[in-house]
Amino acid sequence: MNKYVYSFNEGSKDMRDILGGKGANLAEMTQIGLPVPKGFIVTTDACNKYYTDGNVISDDIQNQIFTKLHELENATGKTFGSLENPLLLSVRSGAKASMPGMMDTILNLGLNDEIVQNLEQTNARFINDCYRRFIAMYADVVNGYDKSLFEEIITKLKQEKNIQADNDLTKEDMKQIVSEFKNLYHRLSGTDFPQDPKVQLLESVTAVFRSWNNERAIVYRKLNNIPDSWGTAVNVQQMVYGNINDQSGTGVAFTRNPATGENTLYGEYLINAQGEDIVAGVRTPNPISTLKEIMPNIYDQFYKYAKQLEEHYLDMQDMEFTIEDGKLYILQTRNGKRTTQAALKIVLDLVSENKISKKEAILRIEPNSLEQLLHPTFDPKELEEAKIIAKGIAASPGAATGKIYFDTEEILKRKDEKTILVRIETSPDDIKGMHQASGVLTVRGGMTSHAAVVARGMGKCCVSGCETLIVDEKNKTITTSNGDLFKEGDYLSLNGNLGEVYKGEVKTIDPNITGDFENFMNLVSSVDTLQVRANADTKKDAETALRFGAKGIGLVRTEHMFFNEDRILTVQEMILADTLEERQAALDKLQKMQASDFEEIFKVMGSYPVTIRYLDPPLHEFLPKTEAEIKTLAKLLKKNVTDLKNKIVSLKEFNPMMGHRGCRLAITYPEIAIMQTKAIIDAIVNLDKLGITVKPEIMIPLVGDVNELNYLKEIIEQELKSAMETKGIDIAYQIGTMIEVPRACITAGEIAKEAEFFSFGTNDLTQMVYGFSRDDAEKFLSDYYSKKIFNQDPFVTIDQNGVGKLMITAIKLARNIRPNIKLGICGEHGGEASSVEFFTNIGLDYVSCSPYRIPIAKLASAQAAIRNMEN
Amino acid sequence: MNKYVYSFNEGSKDMRDILGGKGANLAEMTQIGLPVPKGFIVTTDACNKYYTDGNVISDDIQNQIFTKLHELENATGKTFGSLENPLLLSVRSGAKASMPGMMDTILNLGLNDEIVQNLEQTNARFINDCYRRFIAMYADVVNGYDKSLFEEIITKLKQEKNIQADNDLTKEDMKQIVSEFKNLYHRLSGTDFPQDPKVQLLESVTAVFRSWNNERAIVYRKLNNIPDSWGTAVNVQQMVYGNINDQSGTGVAFTRNPATGENTLYGEYLINAQGEDIVAGVRTPNPISTLKEIMPNIYDQFYKYAKQLEEHYLDMQDMEFTIEDGKLYILQTRNGKRTTQAALKIVLDLVSENKISKKEAILRIEPNSLEQLLHPTFDPKELEEAKIIAKGIAASPGAATGKIYFDTEEILKRKDEKTILVRIETSPDDIKGMHQASGVLTVRGGMTSHAAVVARGMGKCCVSGCETLIVDEKNKTITTSNGDLFKEGDYLSLNGNLGEVYKGEVKTIDPNITGDFENFMNLVSSVDTLQVRANADTKKDAETALRFGAKGIGLVRTEHMFFNEDRILTVQEMILADTLEERQAALDKLQKMQASDFEEIFKVMGSYPVTIRYLDPPLHEFLPKTEAEIKTLAKLLKKNVTDLKNKIVSLKEFNPMMGHRGCRLAITYPEIAIMQTKAIIDAIVNLDKLGITVKPEIMIPLVGDVNELNYLKEIIEQELKSAMETKGIDIAYQIGTMIEVPRACITAGEIAKEAEFFSFGTNDLTQMVYGFSRDDAEKFLSDYYSKKIFNQDPFVTIDQNGVGKLMITAIKLARNIRPNIKLGICGEHGGEASSVEFFTNIGLDYVSCSPYRIPIAKLASAQAAIRNMEN
Repeated sequence: MNKYVYSFNEGSKDMRDILGGKGANLAEMTQIGLPVPKGFIVTTDACNKYYTDGNVISDDIQNQIFTKLHELENATGKTFGSLENPLLLSVRSGAKASMPGMMDTILNLGLNDEIVQNLEQTNARFINDCYRRFIAMYADVVNGYDKSLFEEIITKLKQEKNIQADNDLTKEDMKQIVSEFKNLYHRLSGTDFPQDPKVQLLESVTAVFRSWNNERAIVYRKLNNIPDSWGTAVNVQQMVYGNINDQSGTGVAFTRNPATGENTLYGEYLINAQGEDIVAGVRTPNPISTLKEIMPNIYDQFYKYAKQLEEHYLDMQDMEFTIEDGKLYILQTRNGKRTTQAALKIVLDLVSENKISKKEAILRIEPNSLEQLLHPTFDPKELEEAKIIAKGIAASPGAATGKIYFDTEEILKRKDEKTILVRIETSPDDIKGMHQASGVLTVRGGMTSHAAVVARGMGKCCVSGCETLIVDEKNKTITTSNGDLFKEGDYLSLNGNLGEVYKGEVKTIDPNITGDFENFMNLVSSVDTLQVRANADTKKDAETALRFGAKGIGLVRTEHMFFNEDRILTVQEMILADTLEERQAALDKLQKMQASDFEEIFKVMGSYPVTIRYLDPPLHEFLPKTEAEIKTLAKLLKKNVTDLKNKIVSLKEFNPMMGHRGCRLAITYPEIAIMQTKAIIDAIVNLDKLGITVKPEIMIPLVGDVNELNYLKEIIEQELKSAMETKGIDIAYQIGTMIEVPRACITAGEIAKEAEFFSFGTNDLTQMVYGFSRDDAEKFLSDYYSKKIFNQDPFVTIDQNGVGKLMITAIKLARNIRPNIKLGICGEHGGEASSVEFFTNIGLDYVSCSPYRIPIAKLASAQAAIRNMEN
Repeated sequence: MNKYVYSFNEGSKDMRDILGGKGANLAEMTQIGLPVPKGFIVTTDACNKYYTDGNVISDDIQNQIFTKLHELENATGKTFGSLENPLLLSVRSGAKASMPGMMDTILNLGLNDEIVQNLEQTNARFINDCYRRFIAMYADVVNGYDKSLFEEIITKLKQEKNIQADNDLTKEDMKQIVSEFKNLYHRLSGTDFPQDPKVQLLESVTAVFRSWNNERAIVYRKLNNIPDSWGTAVNVQQMVYGNINDQSGTGVAFTRNPATGENTLYGEYLINAQGEDIVAGVRTPNPISTLKEIMPNIYDQFYKYAKQLEEHYLDMQDMEFTIEDGKLYILQTRNGKRTTQAALKIVLDLVSENKISKKEAILRIEPNSLEQLLHPTFDPKELEEAKIIAKGIAASPGAATGKIYFDTEEILKRKDEKTILVRIETSPDDIKGMHQASGVLTVRGGMTSHAAVVARGMGKCCVSGCETLIVDEKNKTITTSNGDLFKEGDYLSLNGNLGEVYKGEVKTIDPNITGDFENFMNLVSSVDTLQVRANADTKKDAETALRFGAKGIGLVRTEHMFFNEDRILTVQEMILADTLEERQAALDKLQKMQASDFEEIFKVMGSYPVTIRYLDPPLHEFLPKTEAEIKTLAKLLKKNVTDLKNKIVSLKEFNPMMGHRGCRLAITYPEIAIMQTKAIIDAIVNLDKLGITVKPEIMIPLVGDVNELNYLKEIIEQELKSAMETKGIDIAYQIGTMIEVPRACITAGEIAKEAEFFSFGTNDLTQMVYGFSRDDAEKFLSDYYSKKIFNQDPFVTIDQNGVGKLMITAIKLARNIRPNIKLGICGEHGGEASSVEFFTNIGLDYVSCSPYRIPIAKLASAQAAIRNMEN
């Protein structure tokens, strides 16, 4: 017989897979003697069995649950369903990975009319408060009814009685609320609120299992790459009460500051409240430091336990606690979510404190999380003049500027714009919108509110608890305390470091990458294996790349230089030329421009390699689209408007992604490849005079057949050789190809005969291997996620099973022919952690990514190297 | 030392690779004692060496040429350059494969002013006629000057003297022409016409080598899949003269009729002419049968040699002969080009005559050539009423109707229309146009004129020698003998079987496939291995498929039914539905329509398998494009025009080929897949009542990940299973996938776990493996051919090296998981001969192609089977 239910004293922290994170930690705390209310855990296996059994909890599992329940009755001396001394329970979900706010909790389970009626004699207000909470949570979690319907009843009552805080509600009020809640439940369900505690328990466990597959949970898992197959455990625990009297309370705290990493106890609490009051952000709580004054003993106890837990887990802990009538209980501990800044400081401190090794420190930082450090901050000059319209809690650091919208739907409609999501308080339904928006602004909620926790996890700037703002979600306006009005689409800026909200658009500047970041990256560099290069098109990019530790440039997209305002006309002249002479005249002009660009980049990069990709995009991308633009261009180029339009139309393509682009352009117009080669030569000659020797790597894009490469290689080498002869210089060039067409992978052996290096263009390769146009796939891929066909976006994380296999084939074929061939990758996957790990493992020589992602790539490859050492 | 030059008596017919076809046959005929003028052959190796040496004939090769020239002087008793008894030469190209009209010939080489002056004393007209021809050909072939400039001189002289035929030119006329030709040559080149015979010879050999890479030759090779690497040999041969007097003449003949295959000598000749006069179609020649009356001895000799050659080569021969002052010479023999009808009759006859085996007969028919038999002919009813406007020579059989154009350029501009190329006479420059046009009409030239030979080779309908028509190529008009005028763009119809030209458009009907064709296909069926199925979307297609011997349908494109005029509105209703209810209402209507289509097809195919592909193209393909169409549709659907436009715009895609199509549609809209499944069920239920049991194969398009298939398979199987239960019938269905996305090949093992069959969609697979959008690639692929990057069109002939390798990978992975998986292909390659051979060799179970290509696929697979038996 499988064991599906564990008492807390049967488990340990190493049993996360079956007990879930929360359950494993409750068990562990019990084992090490912390004051944890007693309870048991229904395992993740039980959850998975629930699904494979057709959404049914088997008799076997039911029996195991009731056996443990009976043990709990014995241990607590209370009886489930007893009128006098009833055992009341909390039922909480707990998956292997922490999923804050995603799963559901039911408190005070076990109450019914009879019990409440009996206990009213001693504490009527308290017991009715518990009952109304239970009814509302049960109705929400088990039946899926709208919480706000229940909340409205309370709000209405408070309005009628003209009171602000729930605490001011009397016992009569509570009784009335319970009565109205029960009526509402009856109206919604057609049945009475369930009175049998066993039914309440089984229904609640079922509801937790079911919640594993609610939409919010699925979205969260998708964003965090959590497999659907994990399932959730259910924690059933004796209730303790923070809302029993003023000697009671509840709070959450971190052993170190989750925003900065500072080594001080950090958190907040509410007197006479239950845990949900804090997490939901309904009341704004007090800082934990004030507890020292109010309840010094409790504070000292808590401080001791906090230190003990950190020592035990060797990581910063995020704890929940409840004080019941002067007695402290620890309800939960887990490794705390933190900002990346904090994460870096904490691992560096833990290394200093000799608590963890350097390798452990490197492994502990999620590489993709570094991104949030590498984002811009506000330009201090603009910041000085920025007008503060409100101040809230600095819930998640960073700087964001954008147009404000009041719901997720509107945000999702504006994927190309910078947006700010504004909400009174966010709920799990806002996750998609938060992911898309540049920043999040809420009126209610503290550091541990939903908005704050989720935003920090995403590395998204968030200002929460801006209580001076009046947000009208229906009419889509914000009114400030001064009476200033902001409407949907207006610009605001958020300072997640200071909790400030600024009027209008405030310019941002490059991030500061010194201090902890620099120290951590130095640690990383000590095990770095893969070479990390940057994709960089300008002098500025190249400089940024160097600053972040790039060892070369893996991709100069020459066409990006073509789009500059002062050049596009010459490019258009070249494309629209009617004769080779006209085209050559335009090319001559472009050659000068390109030469100076190359010269600048070469100069910055010094002896590091620079890979120059020849012209790639279809020519129509450079041409004007609108009637007016065409007319202007015709005038400038002194061409007939109709002729010009016809020419532009003739360049249009059905599927430009697979059209006349890449090496196909230079095959039709070799003069373009010749111009680009001459520009490289010119740059080299100029730098040669300054004593700077560069090693250009010439990269031909979109090769699918070795003959394409051969044709262009011959033309390019002819230019290079003739330049070397006539100018008497030596150019240590290499000629290689992008590998981005499936056929290039299949025929990589033949191509390797001619190419000195390969750079996998995984963006295009992914498009063609799947047959997905990236510009169009967004539309249907959302269905793929919701229908569980895909777990992750292959344009973000390399598809190891398809694209990856083809890469492995190509590598094998290529190294077979040319063992020392240089192999790299310059798609966006080059800056994504799990992809970089894969690239490290399949033996690439380098990855090239955007300058801001270099640290991520370096960290990911270092982690892969450490893991490979360990295996 | 390599041997680069061979005497005729040093070679044989088995030395085609180095001697070329013409040279090998001249050597062979010399060896078996036929009267062949003596000569020698410069090999194809010499041609290739010429190119690798940088377009130079090495000293070694020059020496070998002059050594053989000296031997030829000794053998003929004539001396090269002698005033009294000069050795005059013909220099002709000759590649391994016959390339009629593609390469260049120079006659009478060795003449110069001095020699002509000396020989004028005996036959002034003749020697000047020879000299003027030599100058013109040399100027054309060696210098590349426009032939028409020389022809104009003759035309002008004839006009001045008011004579029709060249034969009426006097010796003075000829002298004048020579003199004017020499002046023209001087004007064009700036130098005198070369007087040194050795220079003439070397320059001519060089010119032949060079002509291997002229544009016409490259086009011809591309159309005929001849590798560029073969090179051409050069035949240098003593001149004999058909233009010396009226006891002289020249002709060409076939041992059997090349149009019908009938076993009678067939050909034509001209008295007092040189060979080029016939081939060029300048004068209209006499049928060979009339030679019997004029020169009975010569005729008998020729007849004997013809029979001897056919016995020797065991195939129909195409011969050139010259009669010089009453003596017969055979100048060339080769296996004759023939129509496919003739080819079938000839191999069947040769089998009856016990000259070749059945297998040999099967191997001798080029599978792709069957296509010309399978094309439509005129509807006899329409033909009865068709108005004949001219009668010419039935140069190449078939029926063609289309708009007339007078040059290749105009034809190429109209790829989507049916066109007829009209020319006074065609030249090699017209090859591209002939390939594109539906038919070819010329005013001059007989059965062996350029137009006739090339058209027959292409299987293109051609009427030549329509001398009653006045064609004004400049003003682009045809005037008939009645004075009727036809302008560019007017419709004409050509009957290539009768040589008739009809006014307007004459409707065509399906081809007759009985007689020799049927007998031959029966022969083929005796060794057939691969199953051949048809791509068929309608009852009519299915019937045609059965008639051509299909053993099932490999592809029903369900969307083709959607495009019918009476259905498109319902399809649009479905696509533009605002609610699921609206969509379902439209789907219900479509279900009825699809069910009746499926029923018809199933009924025709009986127990043969029918593969139904679910909806594939992006939805926007079904929507109106123009403002007016949208307005009409809005009215019909009772929708707002702006809303409709927005919806249509929102469905637009950047790269529709890789967008929301294939299985991606049904994943977003499962109701479409459900509708199609229900339609299949409805059809099956109806047929079940008639006692007809069908075996549907349900095919999911564009699968790239097994989860896509799983998702839809579950939905479809649910419908099928529930139908089987509720309707109490048994459906022997299979569910499989198209394999057309590269990732499907790479992950074929996983997909094979779920798919009962694979059908390779090689059209899309080729697009994605190369990253070529077929709609756009045409533009740049022409550069690929001219720059020799590609030898063949991968959309016509399967790319064995890339796409093919991926197919092999997929087959291996799939059979590993599911050994009995059914594997087929339903791209257009399924009807192309060399591709079918490849598919046979890699072990596919079936190919599916358009009904008209079934015989081609059957023949190709039979040939592959025979070759595999032989190896």
